[in-house]
Amino acid sequence: MPPGQNRQVVLKSRPVGVPQSEHFEIVSTPLAELKPGELLVRNDFLSVDPAMRGWVNAAANYADPVAVGAVMRSFAAGHVIASRNPAYAENDRVMGMLGWQEFAVTDGKAIRRKVGEPDLPLSLSLGVLGLNGVTAYFALTEVGEPRPGDTVAVSTAAGAVGSAVGQIAKIAGCRTVGIAGGAQKTSLCLSEFGYDAAIDYKSADFERDLVAACPNGVNMYFDNTSGHISDVVLRQLAKGARVVICGTASVPSWEPWPEGPRVERHLLNKSARMQGFLIWDFEHRYNEAVTRLAAWIRSGQLRYREEILDGLESAPDAIAGLYRGENLGKRVISVRHG
Amino acid sequence: MPPGQNRQVVLKSRPVGVPQSEHFEIVSTPLAELKPGELLVRNDFLSVDPAMRGWVNAAANYADPVAVGAVMRSFAAGHVIASRNPAYAENDRVMGMLGWQEFAVTDGKAIRRKVGEPDLPLSLSLGVLGLNGVTAYFALTEVGEPRPGDTVAVSTAAGAVGSAVGQIAKIAGCRTVGIAGGAQKTSLCLSEFGYDAAIDYKSADFERDLVAACPNGVNMYFDNTSGHISDVVLRQLAKGARVVICGTASVPSWEPWPEGPRVERHLLNKSARMQGFLIWDFEHRYNEAVTRLAAWIRSGQLRYREEILDGLESAPDAIAGLYRGENLGKRVISVRHG
Repeated sequence: MPPGQNRQVVLKSRPVGVPQSEHFEIVSTPLAELKPGELLVRNDFLSVDPAMRGWVNAAANYADPVAVGAVMRSFAAGHVIASRNPAYAENDRVMGMLGWQEFAVTDGKAIRRKVGEPDLPLSLSLGVLGLNGVTAYFALTEVGEPRPGDTVAVSTAAGAVGSAVGQIAKIAGCRTVGIAGGAQKTSLCLSEFGYDAAIDYKSADFERDLVAACPNGVNMYFDNTSGHISDVVLRQLAKGARVVICGTASVPSWEPWPEGPRVERHLLNKSARMQGFLIWDFEHRYNEAVTRLAAWIRSGQLRYREEILDGLESAPDAIAGLYRGENLGKRVISVRHG
Repeated sequence: MPPGQNRQVVLKSRPVGVPQSEHFEIVSTPLAELKPGELLVRNDFLSVDPAMRGWVNAAANYADPVAVGAVMRSFAAGHVIASRNPAYAENDRVMGMLGWQEFAVTDGKAIRRKVGEPDLPLSLSLGVLGLNGVTAYFALTEVGEPRPGDTVAVSTAAGAVGSAVGQIAKIAGCRTVGIAGGAQKTSLCLSEFGYDAAIDYKSADFERDLVAACPNGVNMYFDNTSGHISDVVLRQLAKGARVVICGTASVPSWEPWPEGPRVERHLLNKSARMQGFLIWDFEHRYNEAVTRLAAWIRSGQLRYREEILDGLESAPDAIAGLYRGENLGKRVISVRHG
């Protein structure tokens, strides 16, 4: 018996900056019968990612913004429960752009991949085996170009992407310095994620601590924040350093466009480079990354944290919570099904 | 008969920002006899380069600052007139870090190269066949990575480095858009240096004109200025763009460090990169560049302009003049010898 109703989180109004709970509402919509070529997915886990801020803002970005009134765009993972598409069968585990909703109907284009790794939890396909882990893997290896012995500084070091970056850099033979906010996160960096040093950017001694932790400078900086953290790290670049721009979590809004210390002199004096990373550029190599990440999880070389929120009702405030820095680990929403 | 006296331009006091004539003085110093291993060079041409601003400033930079009271560091080209060094013979044409002075005594370490290309003027070894041309060649080919069909925007487009960048980019099959200040320089871009379009950054319509000249965005930006020009160009980057940071001519001082619009979002949205270029990283490949540049000069594919100032007395104001934008072409000082 297919379900009759589908509860969905839709965008109610367009935020400037970080979307808050008042920008969303939960509606119930009847599910139509499947047309030929379509499949019905029961979403088990919905993803909550910092990039979703950009997906709802009006400013030109790397994706068209979510329309007001539309289901919130998101990754989600679930099971196929009905299929009129020959590429998918009932009980297949899938993940893709399935949105913040209980069920998703798609002609297959929204599916990013069938989830293998049956020995590992499905929710990981949204985190360390999903966008986060794959981002960490390619941002580090393809843009950061780690060399054994490099000192690698990582912002959002205890976060879903940063923690994987730090651990993969260790596997690559680097020395890792994690930058995170507060004692709880810096402790996690050391106890869980194997960083050689962990620094609290909220401390008044942040710059002094960073200099002490990087006596030969920073060969690679994984930048997920921009803002003050980056301003401090850029002053410590070593000759030939690579700065991977992966996110701008510390910038509350790009309207108006924020200013900061100019970077040209740092890049010039150190023959250094800054380069933006978009996961979509590496989509065709997704499976290469997942295979390696899964192997490192099984061998214990790659650890992860998840924070699972309960039910669709927790969705509207979930992105705002990320930007308040309240989560420890990859945030996903578990969808209750009757 | 070796000369008895050597007139030299020495640094009198340390400037903040661009050195002016009052920061230099001309002194006369007796020339000592050559020791074993030394050679005596008669400087015919002294170089005047924007980078010399950084050589006299106290701020940490890519070279130790020139000491107050010392001869101003500079490239120069001349003839060996006496030698007790077996690697050099009388009448050899040489260029190197020979300083703003009539004569230079060196153990050979200051010499960058013996100047070949006997069919071409010696002064070119300070410009299009020297630091400027070699910088243009490697900055463009190694950092900019031009691809045929790329739109390449060049700041200081009519300058000694920029004009070579634009022409080498044309040789590489690119479409070139020159950015320069004022009608005289934009005219030169079109009439002398073969740009497909030339834009006046001093015009109120600068941004509109740039957008019109780059309908598919900017694939590569050769940045010799930083500042407002770069802020405008970065908004027009195409997907996968490369920004070559070669100089910061529009920044009068880095003390205090200037602010500007943050670049991270541009790099992220376009998977673009910014990379600093230092000629010293490519010193071991100098001859490769000179050989190619000389061939393009002979074939007429690479044109250049020189502005030759008369006599040592023109040196103290020469760097300030560069920053006033008064020169058209590579500025060198011709040294009068009795």
